[in-house]
Amino acid sequence: MALATPPGIGAISVIRLSGPNSIPAIDNVFSGKIKIKEAKSHTIHYGNIVENDEIIDDVLVSVFKAPNSYTAEDSIEISTHGSPLIAQKIISLIINNGEVRLAEPGEFTKRAFLNSRIDLTQAEAVADIINSRTLVSLRGARNQLGGLLSSRVVSLRERLVNVSSFIELELDFAEEDIELIRRNDLYSKIIDILVEIKGLLDSYTFGKVIRDGINVAIVGEPNVGKSSLLNYLLKESRAIVSEIPGTTRDTIKEEISFDGILIRLFDTAGIRFSEDEIEKEGVERSRDTVRNADLILFVGDVNVGFADSLSTELRELNSSAKIIKILNKTDLGVNKTFFEDFKISVKTADGMTQLLEGLKKSALSEGAYTEKDAIVTNIRHYNCLVKAEENLKKALKTISENYSGEFLASDFRAAEIALAEIIGEVTPEEILNNIFSKFCIGK
Amino acid sequence: MALATPPGIGAISVIRLSGPNSIPAIDNVFSGKIKIKEAKSHTIHYGNIVENDEIIDDVLVSVFKAPNSYTAEDSIEISTHGSPLIAQKIISLIINNGEVRLAEPGEFTKRAFLNSRIDLTQAEAVADIINSRTLVSLRGARNQLGGLLSSRVVSLRERLVNVSSFIELELDFAEEDIELIRRNDLYSKIIDILVEIKGLLDSYTFGKVIRDGINVAIVGEPNVGKSSLLNYLLKESRAIVSEIPGTTRDTIKEEISFDGILIRLFDTAGIRFSEDEIEKEGVERSRDTVRNADLILFVGDVNVGFADSLSTELRELNSSAKIIKILNKTDLGVNKTFFEDFKISVKTADGMTQLLEGLKKSALSEGAYTEKDAIVTNIRHYNCLVKAEENLKKALKTISENYSGEFLASDFRAAEIALAEIIGEVTPEEILNNIFSKFCIGK
Repeated sequence: MALATPPGIGAISVIRLSGPNSIPAIDNVFSGKIKIKEAKSHTIHYGNIVENDEIIDDVLVSVFKAPNSYTAEDSIEISTHGSPLIAQKIISLIINNGEVRLAEPGEFTKRAFLNSRIDLTQAEAVADIINSRTLVSLRGARNQLGGLLSSRVVSLRERLVNVSSFIELELDFAEEDIELIRRNDLYSKIIDILVEIKGLLDSYTFGKVIRDGINVAIVGEPNVGKSSLLNYLLKESRAIVSEIPGTTRDTIKEEISFDGILIRLFDTAGIRFSEDEIEKEGVERSRDTVRNADLILFVGDVNVGFADSLSTELRELNSSAKIIKILNKTDLGVNKTFFEDFKISVKTADGMTQLLEGLKKSALSEGAYTEKDAIVTNIRHYNCLVKAEENLKKALKTISENYSGEFLASDFRAAEIALAEIIGEVTPEEILNNIFSKFCIGK
Repeated sequence: MALATPPGIGAISVIRLSGPNSIPAIDNVFSGKIKIKEAKSHTIHYGNIVENDEIIDDVLVSVFKAPNSYTAEDSIEISTHGSPLIAQKIISLIINNGEVRLAEPGEFTKRAFLNSRIDLTQAEAVADIINSRTLVSLRGARNQLGGLLSSRVVSLRERLVNVSSFIELELDFAEEDIELIRRNDLYSKIIDILVEIKGLLDSYTFGKVIRDGINVAIVGEPNVGKSSLLNYLLKESRAIVSEIPGTTRDTIKEEISFDGILIRLFDTAGIRFSEDEIEKEGVERSRDTVRNADLILFVGDVNVGFADSLSTELRELNSSAKIIKILNKTDLGVNKTFFEDFKISVKTADGMTQLLEGLKKSALSEGAYTEKDAIVTNIRHYNCLVKAEENLKKALKTISENYSGEFLASDFRAAEIALAEIIGEVTPEEILNNIFSKFCIGK
């Protein structure tokens, strides 16, 4: 059992129990018109939580009977007055009077997975849904919960099992040395599977962006207009990013949502890239910002351009981020070209439409996410797909170099296991624990 | 409609709707096995919240049909994945597609009151329950929600109406000049009522403590052991006070619970009562602490005693708080007496048992709250009772001075109104608004 609603004061709190002992445990402390054990599934019962004849709270008890619950087990939800004190008191009262214990983080979802109500990608999607900060990331997670990715992986795996079973069969009859599938056919079937895996792997660049958003660093010499650019971007993004308590406002400057993509804007304004002893900490923070950026907005003055030393330093700090060069202050007149990507004036809004379009394109890389296609958003899934890809490529080599079927079977098995790991069929306990420990308590 | 669970990330969030439009509004966006309008009361329905064929979230919808709900109206609770983004999205979706609006703070409870499901003291108890910080204050609020105070007030009012109706009747037959109730009997009946009101008024000293706790300031010259006394008290109080996010830790030093009484310990250690310009702000804060204290622990050194200047200043700042004089460091040997209340050594724990007992007694004033008797915890109720008392005393005077029945009737009416105000029968709109505006949204 666990508190399922966020901690703190609200109108109501919900306490959740799951497992065969839930119903007896609630009946030990609940006093209503009927016993909960006599209640039908999906019904709600008003009554009191009572300790030694004293009412602790009047509550609503919701009953879910196996297998029609989130966990596929008997489950109970107790809706209490929204005070942390009451929730705490009722939880300890139930634990003292029943065969129940506090749930671990993610334990309800883990049970849903272990009871085969959902597979592992769906369980992971539950956490992604809860942590979604923009509507686009929410949509991606919803599609994953709906089984869009699972069904692709399951079908890939079936196709793989289909070809590998020929090889397994050949090994069973090894003494007779028959070839049940022509090596050419086998080769092209593997290629087909590899193409599909490649497609999923390619979706990860975009999937990562929609799930986690991107970090954008705004850099440049002093007085080129970094802060006014930041403020302009903030004003332009009308979509609101939901605020999460506890976000460290020290390092993250501002979060905005561009077409549903979470963009974290890091302003390095005021922090110069200097070696001044006093500014050292500021400089190091500024460097970290650049190191972690996916996109760098390098702002220069329209008549001065981009300092070469800063250009070099940016590339040294971060070789993979895309750098967008922006010349600001066109209102002062443009006399030279500095190989900039955009010319703007934050003051007069000149060139800003083009800049915004360019930013969106750079952030999204592959266009907006509207189609209902499976997308890989999770590094674990990505790594499993890479493992499957590697082993299938090895299989191709095994075929072309005419190694024995034993090697081929081993390549196939490794690829199969990698795919099975994605949906949680052969996932090692420690990986499972790692996944569910990142859930919040009560989910 | 409103979010009913605390804001932030959790396993689930609950959105609540009430009123005749709730069920049509949910049916506009919900896709499940059946329409919610066909659902029976107190049942739960799994399905999707859908916008233009896109699933926003899969949810559980709980149905409560009038009059069997918190508000006595048709009500709906939607249990969603616990993300602020999802709750926000679903709320705006429902508002855009139905005849519903966002609820005002406390509006659900206000409707329960306006629909006569609960009276005003019970509505106020709901807020007290949610804000309870200790089990004793929770018990007090629960008893009030249970109607313990209401029933006393209702019975007082009935007795009052009973006697005043004789007077009203006398006025109706004024020309015949009959006395329907002997003035002696009337007098003693009023006295009985006054005694009961006095009992309720007296309970407020204690009621205020159990509802709001008490402020304890620890003061004394530097190095007398104020901080070590504070730490000792913290260690001794094993009962945990539930933590509320947002409590200003700047001014409140520590909160502990002694036998269920919330005690806010303010340490003035390090803040001297000096006129030093630099320390001025600290000194002013220290003075405020003393001004707001219900109890002052004045600590002195066993061989130095209590500085006269400080004693005088404490009394000037706060004339009503009880001051407990504590001589610390008895381990250094006791040579003099300083008219102290307690002699202790925090170091050796000498005398600490007696001090703790003394503190509890001072905090509670009237002993522990175990009995199930009505207690006034709310200043509004207290003020109404004072008004009733004043008018009944006026009535006594009217009787003894033989004024006409008109005056008497007017006194009775005023007293009746004061009592009716407590339970919300004649409470002005602005008072109601003031009460419910202090509720959280969603309750």
